[in-house]
This record gives sequence, structure tokens and C-alpha cells, in this order.
Amino acid sequence: MTRTRLTLYDTTLRDGQQTQGVQFSTPEKHQIAAMLDQLGIDYIEGGWPGANPTDSEFFAAKPQTKATLTAFGMTKRAGRSAENDDVLAAVLNADTQAVCLVGKAHDFHVTTALGISLAENLENIGASIAHCVARGREAHFDAEHFFDGYKANPDYALQALHAAHDAGARWIVLCDTNGGTLPSEIRAITESVIKSGIPGDHLGIHCHDDTGQAVACSLAAVEAGARQIQGTLNGLGERCGNASLTTLIPTLLLKPAYAERFEIGVTPEALTQLLRISRKLDDILNRVPLRTLPFVGASAFAHKAGLHASAILKDPTTYEHIDPATVGNARVVPMSNQAGQSNLRMRLADMGVAVARDDPRLGAILEDVKAREDQGYAYDSAQASFELLARRALGQVPDYFEVKRYRVTVERRKNKYNEMITLSEAVVVVKIGDEKKLSVSESLDAEGHDRGPVNALAKALAKDLGPYQDAIDDMKLVDFKVRITQGGTEAVTRVIIDSEDGQGRRWSTVGVSPNIVDASFEALLDAVTWKFLRDGVEPCRT
Amino acid sequence: MTRTRLTLYDTTLRDGQQTQGVQFSTPEKHQIAAMLDQLGIDYIEGGWPGANPTDSEFFAAKPQTKATLTAFGMTKRAGRSAENDDVLAAVLNADTQAVCLVGKAHDFHVTTALGISLAENLENIGASIAHCVARGREAHFDAEHFFDGYKANPDYALQALHAAHDAGARWIVLCDTNGGTLPSEIRAITESVIKSGIPGDHLGIHCHDDTGQAVACSLAAVEAGARQIQGTLNGLGERCGNASLTTLIPTLLLKPAYAERFEIGVTPEALTQLLRISRKLDDILNRVPLRTLPFVGASAFAHKAGLHASAILKDPTTYEHIDPATVGNARVVPMSNQAGQSNLRMRLADMGVAVARDDPRLGAILEDVKAREDQGYAYDSAQASFELLARRALGQVPDYFEVKRYRVTVERRKNKYNEMITLSEAVVVVKIGDEKKLSVSESLDAEGHDRGPVNALAKALAKDLGPYQDAIDDMKLVDFKVRITQGGTEAVTRVIIDSEDGQGRRWSTVGVSPNIVDASFEALLDAVTWKFLRDGVEPCRT
Repeated sequence: MTRTRLTLYDTTLRDGQQTQGVQFSTPEKHQIAAMLDQLGIDYIEGGWPGANPTDSEFFAAKPQTKATLTAFGMTKRAGRSAENDDVLAAVLNADTQAVCLVGKAHDFHVTTALGISLAENLENIGASIAHCVARGREAHFDAEHFFDGYKANPDYALQALHAAHDAGARWIVLCDTNGGTLPSEIRAITESVIKSGIPGDHLGIHCHDDTGQAVACSLAAVEAGARQIQGTLNGLGERCGNASLTTLIPTLLLKPAYAERFEIGVTPEALTQLLRISRKLDDILNRVPLRTLPFVGASAFAHKAGLHASAILKDPTTYEHIDPATVGNARVVPMSNQAGQSNLRMRLADMGVAVARDDPRLGAILEDVKAREDQGYAYDSAQASFELLARRALGQVPDYFEVKRYRVTVERRKNKYNEMITLSEAVVVVKIGDEKKLSVSESLDAEGHDRGPVNALAKALAKDLGPYQDAIDDMKLVDFKVRITQGGTEAVTRVIIDSEDGQGRRWSTVGVSPNIVDASFEALLDAVTWKFLRDGVEPCRT
Repeated sequence: MTRTRLTLYDTTLRDGQQTQGVQFSTPEKHQIAAMLDQLGIDYIEGGWPGANPTDSEFFAAKPQTKATLTAFGMTKRAGRSAENDDVLAAVLNADTQAVCLVGKAHDFHVTTALGISLAENLENIGASIAHCVARGREAHFDAEHFFDGYKANPDYALQALHAAHDAGARWIVLCDTNGGTLPSEIRAITESVIKSGIPGDHLGIHCHDDTGQAVACSLAAVEAGARQIQGTLNGLGERCGNASLTTLIPTLLLKPAYAERFEIGVTPEALTQLLRISRKLDDILNRVPLRTLPFVGASAFAHKAGLHASAILKDPTTYEHIDPATVGNARVVPMSNQAGQSNLRMRLADMGVAVARDDPRLGAILEDVKAREDQGYAYDSAQASFELLARRALGQVPDYFEVKRYRVTVERRKNKYNEMITLSEAVVVVKIGDEKKLSVSESLDAEGHDRGPVNALAKALAKDLGPYQDAIDDMKLVDFKVRITQGGTEAVTRVIIDSEDGQGRRWSTVGVSPNIVDASFEALLDAVTWKFLRDGVEPCRT
């Protein structure tokens, strides 16, 4: 049976940026576009050129993607020609293969929000699409408020679509802009659109999650005949978010009802990277990944109920709707059982640590990991700290040095020019063998700017480690992430530090404490210890 | 037109407790049951009496509810009579009006997980239900794995249902235990069940969110004829969670497609308490409320796009699928790079500041917001800091006091018991009118634990603000979020602080600096200043 090709259109970089608190930088946009391209998305909507500097810079850098890069904009305004509309010109100047123009399909919006006549609006749509097509672009029409518009005035809503279609639009995207339309309504209205003469392979669907049904609404449109699905990674987007491609992609690939009828550009190999891509986006946003996310959430294959866990041991299909490995996820079962221990042995083997199958220390390490993760540690993001935890339990980490004490001071006051300045200073006292070493550093960078207390502490620690100095000299702190893992005044701070050395190695360590300075210091100490261990540094004996 | 009554069945206290990291105490269970009762839920499933002490204690206290309290358990085991099954006896001993017994409807589970014959399983179901009915209880049969079972062996799956129905079960609940069934499959299979002779007003639906479609699946079953919906508050539950009643209830009440056909026990008045109930549950669980939750999320009615904001100003229905007040929520028009002048004027109007459309200060404020957002400020998450920025530009913020200097010390060292401890201390010097005030605080909480440098600084600042002390005494820091907005050593720290006062007001402020202590102090100062402004505190004159 030949399967029908569905087209995936990602709008993480445009509609996803409408999420409260989300503002991508240009390099972050490039990073996300590269991930989407790797995944096998057909269209990547990069933003609205001309609307803000970040979006303009993104396109100006001419990102190279297998996917069709698409610039978003709006149809020309009334009272001027498409040629003389500066907003439309900025979109075309981004020089992308495809452009997507939003226009009104709801009569109420035309008269209330735009304040123009219904005929003028149709003229704006047709002339704008025709202008893009004449410039050699693949044109998409984003029919804003289409479903609400259809319910209010079906004839006019369809006229708006046909104005774009007749002008040569490759895709007409049916948008449920306010997110309140139900799957059954989406299905029936999409069928009417096809009946009106626009073929399904020219129709896209764009849904929001305001009734928690964005995925179901998108699939209802596909069942009715639409062949392009718009969505975002992790369901990012305005208000409750857009339809999540992170949920739709595995559903389309793994559920027989869809997999037997349709194909998409995402391969099974690319699908195994889905969890990694989802987490990477959260990393960029510095968000705590949502545990309950379908397919890729940390809890998506966690079996807590006792009855479930014991059945899972007999046969995983008893309580799993798909194999977690297909999306790069893993089953989570109570730590103490055999499956947990064999996972641990595999992870240790990856680090070059061989442990026998029946070694009782395996159970102890698992207990320790679980207890520390309850306190806020995150060993998935801090592999070097995990390696140290395991090696400590196995007696493989020497005592290189002991920190006797430290003190950090942050002071804000006026300088001699009567300007307010902030200065941080750190003192670290370590004992190496029999020798005690005091080091002090301040936090000013080369330009004389304060870089904060953790910077001062890192510099003081690295300043004089005596016989170990050679091993530490090529080491630098390259990233620093802070997360509050509990709300309220009882908040605990988790710090993850990424370090790099002259050999190009990069490793991550974690520290947790109610005190951010203390959490940072713990992560710094792990970073230094891991480096010594990997370099085979000989510990000083007393 | 007469509307059909739908029955709501809540399982927050049983399936909701299967969420990773969730374990309710008995008083918390009572608190949640009271909230559900207030909301107008028909059945409250309290737990599994006999399975754990918390659930047994919950029922032993005989909670009084308008809703029908239901005890959960399982059908009797093979090889013994219903009368002699101790697990079943414990469920009946809870002495509730209704009991819900789970049993297998999937042949594979009967043979693989239970290891009994298909006939024995049918006998267990029938005898257990009949036993409960004979004891005067309203019996529900929870048909585990029903949909997967129906796909594998429709005859046997139906036989399991009919065994319960024939034995007198009031409700037969169709469970999609593994959460992988699609809405179209749920609809078709539910129709087949009704065709087999079990009337829809005896059928319930129990869905999970493993493909992000639990709400849509539940509604598909209702459209097919099922009349009881099971779910949980905030969609709590095993793996990705159960169908969310918090989403289903407003959908059923506010969407004409359902409201015109069906009625439920939740009144419009009770619906206005939905947001409060949702947040209260997060409070009990000590979780940060999910901003993107449909209807009740903090972002559910947040309008970030400039185009949307200008239309909302003309008519809120342009970009809102329901009136946020119906569920106790409110519109949010956050500030961001994409905000236009109309967005800004609307925000100012909400704060009670009328500015003329052509006031040149509007442009200046927007420029300032943009410049600061480039530095790392985030005004859509920190509305109080935004208000201060705007009011300062309009000359509406008095100089309440001046911070002359501060100093914070974090020290880690051994105490007199030779244990490593961390201690933070802060000194703040402010000038109020002509008077200079020095305050010092340390960071220890009531249990003697260090809460870090920002805590010490907040306490020192609040310790003595002379004539302003009354205004600050009922204020507390309730949340603290840190984000590094650029990678590498040039990282800038953004701190967002949420504060609350005795009048229940909650507001967010932001600070940005390479130095985390400095960023926190800036946010603290804004928090205090906003409070003074809102309370109409009179500034001291020199």
C-alpha cells in the first residue's frame, strides 16, 4: 500500500517565541534550526524579518538547511500596493525560498481589528500572495482565526482561502488562532474546505492547546485530508502553547493507525534523538524539563504502581504503549531491582569501570543516586559528578587535597569617583599533604568589571594548588547554569558547571545547596577532582 | 431541549497518587476531597483501603461528602470465594456507599500477568461484583487494559464487561491503562460496546495522556455514548498523567458543542473557583504551577504578540476563546521585545496610569524596555519591575531611601564540633531622609540552617527601614528564580523574585548583573519600592 506523505512545518522560532518568558538570541535560533534540520522537519519558520533585530540577524546569516527555510510576515496593508509595502518588502528581503503570510479569514476581525472592508481584505491577500509568487517564492497563506471565522461566516472564510489559493499559494494553513476549537469541529470544517475546491495536499493545520487538544485537533485535520502539520518542539508557543511536534512525530511514526497510511521526513534513527532534542531545547531555555511530557518526559515510562512494576518485569509490553528506546527514552522502575543494576553496570563500563554483576556496591550506588536526586542533584546533566560518585563508592578516588575553609565577600559601595561599584573577593585555604595554602582572588576581569563571587572563588581555588598546578592550568570554566529546584523560601540551588581543558575535553559537574556559593564550590571541586583523575595525577602523601 | 447528565468521577486520591514524587498524607487527602466536593464532583475515589496505612486512615475517618465516596480495590483472586478474599474484605470494610473493583479485560494479561485461565478470570469478575451488590454497595467495574484487550480479542474483552454488567455493576469503566489508544479508536470501540448491549449510561471512560490526547479521548467516548468521565485535578497520575478534570470541566461547561447537549454537577459559580483549586493542589504538592495549563495556567490568557495585544485592546474576544473570569483566571498582557505602543498603553491603563496615545514618553519607555531586555531583563515575568520602570519615566516614583552600601560574606569553615558549616552574613547601610541606618543579619533559618547570601541580604534590608517598617513587615519572599542569560564566563545573571504581602498580593521583580548577589539586591529593592508605592507610603523628606 502506498503511504501518503505528510509535511511537517516547525514554528518554534516564531510562534514558539511567543511563549511567556521566551526570547531566543540569534545563536540560539541557529542552534535550534540545526536540531530541527537533523530531525527531518520539512519547513523551518525562522521568524519575522524586520519585526525585531534577532529575527533579521537570523536570516541575514543565511543558515544552510536541508529543510525549506521560511520567513513569516503579513499580507500587505490596505491603501498601498504589494510593491510599496515596506513590511512585506522586509520579509522578501530575507531571501528565503518560502514565505508565509498571515491574513484575516474572520469577517469580525477584518472590520474590528483591521477596520477595513471585507473586499479590501480579500484584495490584500490575493495581491500579497501573487507578489511573492511573481518574485519566485513558494508562498504560504496563514489563515488567521479561520475556524472561528468559518463558524461566524463560512462563505467569507472560504473566500479568504480561495483568494490565496487562486493567487498561487502552495499551502493554505488553517489556523485555530485562539485555540478553542474542538477536534470534531476541526474535522468537519476541514472536510468542508476540501469540498469547496482546495485539495488536501495544499492544506495545513495550525492548532493551539487551549483546551488541551492541540495534538488531537491536528490529527483530526489530517484524518479529514489536510497534509501539512504545523507545530513546535515541546509544544512551546503563545498562551498554552502550540501543537507539540515532539508528541505528534512519534504518534505518526509509531501508531499503526497513522504509520500504515502516512509517511513523514523523520526516520526511525532520527526519532531516537527526540528526547535529546527536547532536553536540549529546555537547556537553551534553562527550563526544568516537564517530567510528564508524552514520549520524552522523564516520567513517561516510569512505573510506580507495584502491580505494574512486577508485570513489567515479566513483559514490558504489559504496561508500555511503545518501546521507550524508539524515542531515546528509557524505562524507570524502582531502583533496587535487577534492571536498574544492569543499567548502572553498563553506564560504568562506558566510563571504563568494570564491576561484577553481583557486586553489592552496585545496590549501594543506586541508593545513593536516588537519595541525592531527591535532594536536587541531576546526574544526567553532570556525568563527571556521577562518575566521581560511583568511583568514590568503589574506592577509586584518592584524597588529592582538603579544603579547610573559604570566605567570599561581595561588597557594593562608592568608589573614589563617587560611582557605585561592586567587588567580590574570595579566600580559599587548602591542605595538600602537610602543607597549608592560602589563596586570595578578586573577581575583576581584564576590563576591570566585577564577574561575581563564583568567579572569584574559582580563581582563588585554581591559584595555588602546589604540585597539582600543572594539571589545573589548562582548565577553564566554560558554562555555569543555576536552577532553583524547589519554590518558596526553602529553595535549594542546583549549580551545573561545564569545564574544558587544553586537550578539548569538556565535562559537567553538579553541586546542590540552599546557598548558591556553596553549591557552586561543590561543583568546582568535582570539576578539579575529575580532571586530576582523568590526567592520572599522583596524589601527594603526607 | 433536555440535556443529558454526565457523571464526573475523580481519582486524584488514587491514580493521581501514582504520579512520580507524589505521596499524600491523610490530612492532605481530606483537604483534597473537600475541594472536590465543593467543586461538584459526583464520585470521589479515596484510595485503596488495606493497600497502605494512609488510604485506610482516610476511610476510617468517615469523611462526609455530598459526592459518593468510593473505595478502590481489585476483584477476588482465583481459587477462593469472594467471601474469603481478604483483599476484597478490606475494601468492603471501608464502608463506603460505592466500591470500584479493577479486573482484567485483556486475554494476554489474564494468562501472562495473572497466570490463570480466561474462564477463571470471568468468574472472578462476576462473583466479586455480585458479592459487593449483595452487601448493598453500588459496584463499579474498572476494566483494565480494555482497549488493548478489545484490539487483541474483542469477544473476550466484551465478555469481561458483560460478566460485571450481568452481576449488577452500576458502572463499567473502559480503561485505556497504557494510554496509547487514539481518540478515533476510543470512539469506535465505545460504540461497539454499546452495540453489544451495555447502555451508555452505564459506561465510564478512564484515559491517560501518553499521546497527549487524554482529554480528546475522554470526549470521544462521551460522543460515542459513555456517560461517566474519570479524571484527576491538574491531570495528575501515573506516567504522563490521567485525563485532567481541570481541563474537561470548563470544556464541558463553556463549549457550546457540549454545553448544549450535556449537563454536569459543577455550577458556573463553582467553576470560578477552578483556578484556586488547581493552585491549592500545587501548594499541597509544593509544586510550581504549570504556566501553560489550559484554562487555569498563568499563561493561558497571556498575550505576548504585539498584533494580538492591539486587537485585545479593541475587543477581548478577538484573541480569547473564553472569558478568563469564568474559571477564575485573568488576562495578562506582558511586556516583551514584540510589544508595541498599544500594548504598552493598555498595560499602563491596567495599572491606573492614563497616557495619551501621542505622549512621547511612550516611545522612551519602549526604548528603555528594549535596551534593558537586551541586557537580560525580562519584563514579561516581572510586571512589578515593569510598572516601576514606566512610573519612573513618568515621574511617579518618589525617592523613599538610598542604599549607601552593602556587604555580604559567605564563609565555609569548621564549627566547634569539627563539622564543616556554611554561614552568610549581610550588612546594609541605607539613608532615609537625613538618617543613616546600619542593619546586619545572618542567613540562618529557625532550624539553624544556612539559607544563603540573598536570604541574609533580604533580612538585613527589611530589618530597619525606620518610618517604612510597617509597610514592609507583612512582606515575604515566596519564590526566587535564577537564570544565566549568556553562556561562558561573561555570563550575566538574571534574578526574578516573587513577593507576597498580608493582603494576599503577589508581585514579581527582576534584577540583572554579572554578580548574582547584586542582581538579587536589585530585584529586592524593586520589590520593596513597589510595595511602598501600592500602599501609598509617604516618602520622608530631608
